[in-house]
Formats: sequence, structure tokens, C-alpha cells
Amino acid sequence: MGVPVNGAQVFVHGVGTALPGPPVTNEDIAAHYGMPTVWRQWVDEFIGTRSRHLSVDLATGKTSHSLTDLGEIAARGALADAGVAAGDIDVVVMSTATPDHLAPSTVSRIAGRVGIAGVPVYQLQSGCTGAVQALEITQDLLRGGAYRTALVIGGDTSAKHTSPDVDAASVPLEVQVNGLIFGDGVGAAVLGTVPAEGRPVLRHVHSRLVGAGRAPGQTVYWFGRAVSGEDGVPASEDFKAIETTAAPMAADALKHLLHELSWDAEQVRYILPPQLSARMTDRTLSHLALPGSEPISRVTEIGNTGNAIPYFQLELLLPRLNPGDRAVGISIEASKWIRSGYALEQPATA
Amino acid sequence: MGVPVNGAQVFVHGVGTALPGPPVTNEDIAAHYGMPTVWRQWVDEFIGTRSRHLSVDLATGKTSHSLTDLGEIAARGALADAGVAAGDIDVVVMSTATPDHLAPSTVSRIAGRVGIAGVPVYQLQSGCTGAVQALEITQDLLRGGAYRTALVIGGDTSAKHTSPDVDAASVPLEVQVNGLIFGDGVGAAVLGTVPAEGRPVLRHVHSRLVGAGRAPGQTVYWFGRAVSGEDGVPASEDFKAIETTAAPMAADALKHLLHELSWDAEQVRYILPPQLSARMTDRTLSHLALPGSEPISRVTEIGNTGNAIPYFQLELLLPRLNPGDRAVGISIEASKWIRSGYALEQPATA
Repeated sequence: MGVPVNGAQVFVHGVGTALPGPPVTNEDIAAHYGMPTVWRQWVDEFIGTRSRHLSVDLATGKTSHSLTDLGEIAARGALADAGVAAGDIDVVVMSTATPDHLAPSTVSRIAGRVGIAGVPVYQLQSGCTGAVQALEITQDLLRGGAYRTALVIGGDTSAKHTSPDVDAASVPLEVQVNGLIFGDGVGAAVLGTVPAEGRPVLRHVHSRLVGAGRAPGQTVYWFGRAVSGEDGVPASEDFKAIETTAAPMAADALKHLLHELSWDAEQVRYILPPQLSARMTDRTLSHLALPGSEPISRVTEIGNTGNAIPYFQLELLLPRLNPGDRAVGISIEASKWIRSGYALEQPATA
Repeated sequence: MGVPVNGAQVFVHGVGTALPGPPVTNEDIAAHYGMPTVWRQWVDEFIGTRSRHLSVDLATGKTSHSLTDLGEIAARGALADAGVAAGDIDVVVMSTATPDHLAPSTVSRIAGRVGIAGVPVYQLQSGCTGAVQALEITQDLLRGGAYRTALVIGGDTSAKHTSPDVDAASVPLEVQVNGLIFGDGVGAAVLGTVPAEGRPVLRHVHSRLVGAGRAPGQTVYWFGRAVSGEDGVPASEDFKAIETTAAPMAADALKHLLHELSWDAEQVRYILPPQLSARMTDRTLSHLALPGSEPISRVTEIGNTGNAIPYFQLELLLPRLNPGDRAVGISIEASKWIRSGYALEQPATA
């Protein structure tokens, strides 16, 4: 099940990304909320993330960029990078935890803006492993032969959950931490079965729900009008569970992925790690036991961009790949515990 | 693209459904909100839907059933009807416009409760065509050969958007109408490539985004903490656009579906129509020009159950199918205009 056996090879034809506005540093956040210097020092030390981009203007509280706005930029970037026209796209798969609306889907709006029409569009409601799940579905759809070229989009605008005018010192620590580790952004990629010179092959994708019988590590709420109980709480986390589980789960995902590919750990040239916080990323990397590999991460400067993470990593990775290079991306989701990973290989030159 | 050519046949192995609590009639709603008799008469005449089931208790305002609660019942029902164990499920695909949370996905929670573990689970954020989109993805995944048996789930608990303590006479007409046409419910089906005697084959599924350059017909909002502008409005509709567009779009979906299948209209024995309101369902049926077919709909008694509609229809359809019978389901989505349909055929006996 899921092991790469049959069907066509799936190439990564191009990647695009989008970030809202200028970086918002820890100093900026401390200044906005009137937090003391000692707080900022603790953030730098125990979170490690130094800046992020936000789709909400902290000064005015207004939304500066919707997920659709960012998605349009990322999608156009991916199409341009791939040298593919909107009319060549046969199917669109998007993943996000923070859609602009419950309906219409954000993917429909992005497709409309980019000029993609008359094809199926799918949007996964998903947490941190969403981008990998979207890659997995897209790979299976392409291998199945029903489609030739796909646009995959992933991203989040988590700032929708933050209150720029709150008394930050009075909110629970977990809300403070969420406001610091998450950054907004969207990424996109064109995948297809048409061979493309100099572009890597997506060798395998693996995602597994492993949370049966286990309490969620994170819950993100939304509000309709009939709200009871959870009123006003945007999200809740079990940080202890996340801290103790994330790194071994990532190691487990890597183990399964390499096993299914029959790859040795020494053959992995680049590792694209999960990006919870900068500190957690470091800790996870030390668990992955890939001594010969080089990590590709942007967590320190852009934070945890959720469903956009792999695209920002791929954007850095693609120009570095040499013929024969192998790369592995790992993502784990704490919300109901999903482990996932994907593997890329630059074909040897003919 | 999407035309049923290659791959294995996909059978519908079993179906299950779940409705919350007892039916809530138009009389019940009129009594709860203190609406005059003349109002109820207009509802009966111009909406046509007579009752629905709600996941919110109107008297107390409390949520009686979560989407997860209903999904668990529907999933267990589908597994039992199919004679398939939770451990036999290779992949789960769910669709909903109204997930319990943004994270974890409701599909993860349902899978956990039913005892499905160690497989990929996907949740589409989708409007009225969501169930058909989930059938489409599942059919493609099964045909691609990566999986053998899939659980598909679809449903909505739209009552999360209603305010039981509002002055109903003062809310905009479109909010009143939404409160009357939508009903809560969840359905599920087991699909698989293992041949099953007496069970229909899913011959084809078709969904197409056709809304490029067109304003959304419906928008459903969710609220985080940083809400601006749309505060307090659960949804907005362009009823004029929906009324004039829905029936011809459904006819268009049917036309494309039959063309792709090379089926004649006279060969369709059963039609499973869109279920916006009871009146709109009648109007759409008259547009579909399938004189020899019998409609299968539960809209008058359970309303528009969104992503659950096809499962309630399939539950009625399956026992009626005789060898050689053909059935077609049509669904259209006003949010950003998606047309969709699917086709079933009971194999001739050997």
C-alpha cells in the first residue's frame, strides 16, 4: 500500500512561494505588546524563531493579505518556474488549516484568479502534514493516469487567530507561544508526468494516521454563531505531548520512508525537517540520525508556515540538486498524530 | 481526463447514514421562534422542505451531536453493510463544509473512534459537491491501484451557524431560509475493487470548477479571533444567481456525464438530484429531461444535508437496483460554481 511500484514517474516541474509584508521580528512583537526585554530573551532562547511574516497588520488589526491573495502569487510563481500555462493544469490540490472561508473553498478562488477552469479542484482541511498529504494524493492521481499536470498549493494564515489588541502578558503561555512560532505564507508546486530535464522526481510519499486511542496534541477551533463552551479560545495545545512525541515520530516517519524506498540513511544528501519552532527543529534533526545530510529549513526567519513549509524548503533545495542527489522531507502533525514524509531524487544525467 | 478508461472496477460495497435526534418540523421551528402561521404557510409553499434534523437543541442551544458523533455512526453502518472490518480499510476520504474543528481533522477523529489506524486519511473542505468530489478522488485512488478498500464519509452540521435565541423575525430573509433548507446528517460508504455480488459499480465521476470570473453564489464564514468586517454574519447568498443557475448547471453536469459514459438519457433508470430545497429539487428535476427515470430524494423530510446527500440517496437506491439498472447522481455547488455527477450500474448477473 502506497509503495512506489506502478505508474508513471512524477516530476517536480516548478515551485513558487509568497509571504505577506515585511518580517515581524521578536523585537517588533515585544514592542507592540509592551513586553519586557527579559521576555524577548526567553523567546529567543526557548523558541529560537527570530521573525515571521503576518497577514494581519499588528498596528491596525486589519487583514493585509488573505490566503487567496498569497495563494495567487505562489501559484503564478510555480507556473512561471515550471514554464506551464494555467490552461495546462489538469487538477488542483490544495491543503490548509486556515481557509479564508468554509465555502467557497480557497482553492476555487485561487484557481479562478490564476485562470484555471473546467478541472477538478480539491482542498484538504489539514494541519502540519497537510502539504505532504496533498503531495501524496497528487502523486497517486498522476500515477493513476487520470491527469498529466497538477498544481499543488499549501499554506496558512494563522494570524487570523491572533488578537493584536490583547493584553499579551495576561494570555495563557500556549497562546503566546502560538503567536510566536507560526508565520503566514503559501507555497505551490507544479507536478507532472511529462519528463522535465534538470527537475527532481518525487519518488515516494508516505502519510499515516497513528493517533487512534490518543488524545489530540493540538485543537484549533472555529466559530459559527451557536458557540458554546470553547468560546473565545482560538486553539489549545498539549505542549508536553508535542515536545516528547514530535522528534521520535519524525524519526519513525523517516525510518518507514527509507524502508519503503530501500534507501540507506547515508544516501540522503538533504533533509527537509519539520518546522515547529526553531528549537524543536534542531532537536528533531538531532533525532533523525542523518549525519551525512544537510538540513534545509527556513524556520528561524519565517517560522512555522504550516501547510506551506515544504514549498519554502523545495524552493531552496531545487537549485542545489545535482544529478543523483537524494532528499527527504519529514512532517508530523500533533493535532491527531499523523506522521509523514516524502522523497525526491534528481535523475542521473543521460 | 477523468474518463473511465483504465484501472479496476470500483464497487459500492455498503452504505451507512446518521441523523441527529428527532425530525424538527416547520411547525416546531415556527413555534420555537414565535413566528406567525402565515410565515409557516409561506415556508411550506416556497421552500417545500417539511422537516430536518438538527445537531443543536433549539430549546437549550446546546450541541447535541458533533460531526464526529454522527460520522462514527455512519462509518460503522457502512462497514457493517459492506461486511468489512475497520482493519480492512486502506484509506479514508471525508468531505464536509462544517468540520468540528480546523484541526484535528474530523476524519482523524472518526477514524480513531471506529478503529482505523495506520492509513492515510484525507478531509476535503467542500460545499455541496463535496461528496461527489470525495467519490471522484476515491475512485481515482482505487483505480490507480494504490489501495483496495476505501471508506468515504460526507456530512455537515450546519446548525452550528444558527442562533436558537435570535429574534427570527428580525434576521435577513436569507438567514431565515438557510435555517430552513439545511439539515444535519452524515453518510458513509465503503468502496473497493474487490468484486462484490449484488453491489453496483461506480462507473464514472465528474467534477469541474466552472466559476472562473464569476462571483461566488454562497459564502460561509468562520471566525477566529481577529475578525473584521464580516463579524457575526454566518453566511451570505446570492439567491437570484443560485435560482437561475442551479437547474441549467445540473442539466449541464448530466449532459457531460452521459456524454463521457456514452450513455443515452433513456437508459437512466434512477436519478439522484441535487437537494437545495424541496422546491428547487422539483424545478431541477424538470430541467433534467429524464422522463423514464425515477427520482430518489429525501429533501422534503431531511432537508439539504450538504456533503451527506448522496449517501442518503444511495441508501434508498441500493436495495432497489436490479441487474443492468443504471443510476445517475447530480450535484452542483453555488459557492464558487462547481458542477458534478456520478454514475452507477448494477452488473448483469452472470
